[in-house]
Amino acid sequence: MNTLSPAVVLLSGGMDSVTALYHTEKERPVAAALSFEYGAKHNGRELPEAAWHARQLGIRHVVIPLKFMAEHFASALLQGGAAIPKGHYEADSMRQTVVPFRNGIMLSVAAGFAESCGASALVIAAHAGDHAVYPDCRESFMAAMAEAIRQGTYAGVEVLRPFIAMNKAEIAARGALLGVAFERTWSCYVGAEIHCGECGTCVERREAFLDANLPDPTVYAHSGPLPARPAL
Amino acid sequence: MNTLSPAVVLLSGGMDSVTALYHTEKERPVAAALSFEYGAKHNGRELPEAAWHARQLGIRHVVIPLKFMAEHFASALLQGGAAIPKGHYEADSMRQTVVPFRNGIMLSVAAGFAESCGASALVIAAHAGDHAVYPDCRESFMAAMAEAIRQGTYAGVEVLRPFIAMNKAEIAARGALLGVAFERTWSCYVGAEIHCGECGTCVERREAFLDANLPDPTVYAHSGPLPARPAL
Repeated sequence: MNTLSPAVVLLSGGMDSVTALYHTEKERPVAAALSFEYGAKHNGRELPEAAWHARQLGIRHVVIPLKFMAEHFASALLQGGAAIPKGHYEADSMRQTVVPFRNGIMLSVAAGFAESCGASALVIAAHAGDHAVYPDCRESFMAAMAEAIRQGTYAGVEVLRPFIAMNKAEIAARGALLGVAFERTWSCYVGAEIHCGECGTCVERREAFLDANLPDPTVYAHSGPLPARPAL
Repeated sequence: MNTLSPAVVLLSGGMDSVTALYHTEKERPVAAALSFEYGAKHNGRELPEAAWHARQLGIRHVVIPLKFMAEHFASALLQGGAAIPKGHYEADSMRQTVVPFRNGIMLSVAAGFAESCGASALVIAAHAGDHAVYPDCRESFMAAMAEAIRQGTYAGVEVLRPFIAMNKAEIAARGALLGVAFERTWSCYVGAEIHCGECGTCVERREAFLDANLPDPTVYAHSGPLPARPAL
């Protein structure tokens, strides 16, 4: 693979994918940053941040509507679904926030998009802390999906995961080095005016800044003590 | 795998997938027949036929809009693309009708849909005559994609290809035995009032009825001699 061939970056507007965009842009041409509007409660908060960063870098930003997911798929993450649970990701309750095969769908659409615009790589900000509660975050899924995309495209599109050996605190540290404006990233699944500070993604975000020894620029509705971390 | 668990059938409205629907419905519960509106020139012709067969069988029919493909993907098959080429699939010109990673996208969406409605299998009418001109019809792609779907869903959703050892004429024969009303199926990529009789899919359709020794109920705009078959 020519490491200088153009890539498409999956960009949710969260701190990991935004950092991946700045990281990739230093290394190779970025054909586009790709976001998905899939009816998640927090899409309205994260997509404007995604667009903002693409604009900062002069990168084409494309939002793919996947509204059928909110209509036909069951998940607390989606509009019309149950309330977002509080606490750590590992809790059983977080299973409610699974959107069935979401990563498979997004990677597939991104593969077709990449092939259409002459890119030969997809960058996704998967990391070492991704959660086994989501089957489509597991290594066995990612390996098979990457192979399907390689085999199913003329260009043999590669799925790249530059942060797969890093945890979220290390990604935050990388982002800080790259000058990422983290106050323009969105994590909270609740999708209210400000971050709730209590849902699984908010807890992770707070821990990441804490562990990286970085100031956390986020305004949280609840910034009291973090819940105890689950045993490893 | 419990062979009696519910399945979701991918239903384009063509003769292969319609036959797969009747075939599957004899074997196991069908949770839904799933079609995709992806901006193909012939969607307006094939989707009503898909709906008609689901109605005949009393099966729920769901159409998933994937209009972004026509907007962002380049293909002669899609609205706004180049003209549909005539002649055999094997011709280089048919490469223009590739919709990048179309099967990957449809299978991924179907996997999430199946998991959402409690189905544990997906049925796709892939067959032995599928074309290597489409990378996402190749065996290496299908095997990896099936593995990704198995690994990426809680239920371990299985991709079933009941016709994978059959050619199109054998599928036509199976459909005839099942009583499929083939006049209510649509193949032609051009998507005019009647089948053109000259594009790759029309040529295949005509050959399938001919080889199966079945009357062809289709009205074609051009029903002159078929083009010579390519050497194997």
